[in-house]
Amino acid sequence: MNDEQRLEELRTLFHNVEDLIPFNRHLGLHAESIDADGTVVHLDMRDELIGNFQHGVLHGGVISATLDVVGGMAAMATAVLREGSLEDSLQRLRPTSTIDLRVDYLRPGKGERFTARGFTLRAGSRVAVTRMELHNEKGDLLAVGTGTYIYNYADQ
Amino acid sequence: MNDEQRLEELRTLFHNVEDLIPFNRHLGLHAESIDADGTVVHLDMRDELIGNFQHGVLHGGVISATLDVVGGMAAMATAVLREGSLEDSLQRLRPTSTIDLRVDYLRPGKGERFTARGFTLRAGSRVAVTRMELHNEKGDLLAVGTGTYIYNYADQ
Amino acid sequence: MNDEQRLEELRTLFHNVEDLIPFNRHLGLHAESIDADGTVVHLDMRDELIGNFQHGVLHGGVISATLDVVGGMAAMATAVLREGSLEDSLQRLRPTSTIDLRVDYLRPGKGERFTARGFTLRAGSRVAVTRMELHNEKGDLLAVGTGTYIYNYADQ
Amino acid sequence: MNDEQRLEELRTLFHNVEDLIPFNRHLGLHAESIDADGTVVHLDMRDELIGNFQHGVLHGGVISATLDVVGGMAAMATAVLREGSLEDSLQRLRPTSTIDLRVDYLRPGKGERFTARGFTLRAGSRVAVTRMELHNEKGDLLAVGTGTYIYNYADQ
Repeated sequence: MNDEQRLEELRTLFHNVEDLIPFNRHLGLHAESIDADGTVVHLDMRDELIGNFQHGVLHGGVISATLDVVGGMAAMATAVLREGSLEDSLQRLRPTSTIDLRVDYLRPGKGERFTARGFTLRAGSRVAVTRMELHNEKGDLLAVGTGTYIYNYADQ
Repeated sequence: MNDEQRLEELRTLFHNVEDLIPFNRHLGLHAESIDADGTVVHLDMRDELIGNFQHGVLHGGVISATLDVVGGMAAMATAVLREGSLEDSLQRLRPTSTIDLRVDYLRPGKGERFTARGFTLRAGSRVAVTRMELHNEKGDLLAVGTGTYIYNYADQ
Repeated sequence: MNDEQRLEELRTLFHNVEDLIPFNRHLGLHAESIDADGTVVHLDMRDELIGNFQHGVLHGGVISATLDVVGGMAAMATAVLREGSLEDSLQRLRPTSTIDLRVDYLRPGKGERFTARGFTLRAGSRVAVTRMELHNEKGDLLAVGTGTYIYNYADQ
Repeated sequence: MNDEQRLEELRTLFHNVEDLIPFNRHLGLHAESIDADGTVVHLDMRDELIGNFQHGVLHGGVISATLDVVGGMAAMATAVLREGSLEDSLQRLRPTSTIDLRVDYLRPGKGERFTARGFTLRAGSRVAVTRMELHNEKGDLLAVGTGTYIYNYADQ
């Protein structure tokens, strides 16, 4: 099985898993692409996601939640790509846990559609470090983040 | 007007403001107490806030959002307490903006009621730094955070 | 061997190890106490450690280095205390590696003697999270930090 | 005075200032380039900078100190470039203070010459956020960082 096939399976898996995570569903997160260069999700603005009633901007907590999710997906994708097959890796690999997260809020969260991208900076056997970015539909960089994730292996 | 009166006014204000922030309302955040030692909010577990469908734990994004809110409230309370009166400070002081946030997830978010506490470590004229903690109803420390907030003055 | 004996051995070990780390020696870090509640090191002000020539304050890099060291020592002490004996743990446990570090600079680094304290918030089998504080001889809190460390076991 | 002239003056200034900061001199930091895209400093490996006597790698504290310095320089350069002239900006602008710093250690600090680069992500009137990277002479990415700096204006 080649990398592209494993990624395709991984995309399907994430779509299914996303549907199973209630808070991701509430946020309206959709996995857009997953490949060796990183992972992309998007969400659309909705009234419930507003943080400042005067300015109608995205709540900081929505931003941190989204960056956390896309960082964890990138860490997971990196681990799957180095395993023999998706089936093997899924038998061994449970969802990653976030150890810590830093978010830098650069601009007010104005926009209609927000796109978050995560990519892996370091992936050891036990811990991964990722960087994340959030843009709006105009391409403004609204926030960046760094996350540290632990890999949970079923057999350890 | 003494400190206690200003804090009482501030509590009323936060209750009203919280109701006006859609995402806080969705999370179910309730301001519990505000005083010179810090600020406390709580939220109750609900299905929509679950992050891991197998284990039924609070989503990491709910945790980061809650810590961000309680840290910002602590920063705001510190600023109000050093102003002459709440009315004065509210004419001058708009809601704080989060510059950055670090969250450390210490234990899985298991529980029925979660309590977040924020207290101010540093409050200059322009920037405040706060620490935050999240416990469940058993007193387990689930997460800690550090936030940096900017004060927005209407006249600057 | 009881906890106190293991801690005593650990103190001796840290004194020896500190002497072997050139940059710690240059900073002038001295391990002061190690026990179940945390780890304490101190350093004295010297001209080479100055960061702002006008104000004569400690360089931010000296502060981050010191907090990193005391956090790693606290993580190490926690791991040793849960092992059977110091000898056992030292055969298994190599020095921890820092994964990430956050430092919050609260006040200018004025003072003659600086004391850093680290304590462990979470210690899993693979990763530890610690908090650190730096005070001067007057008891002013100058900086706080949070560190994430990985345990390196010889047999993994 | 155009941007290039102001940058040239700024380079000269940084070289002079670096010489005046004892701890930077001890680390052996040299400002290499400063322009609108970011700021670069380098340092050479020396025995005093070693953190792990067995492996001969750079001490984590040297890395955090270096990233802090190059981030502060990038924040300063951004502020100078938007002022009318260097002379004006230097009358108004004192050195930035670090509010907080996050460092992610990605690989052991092996190498002979280390190059740190800082660039500004956000620069408001009062606060700047920067990202930093450290590479060795082979181009390996050893560490990344994010810093938040406050601008100190003489007239405020």
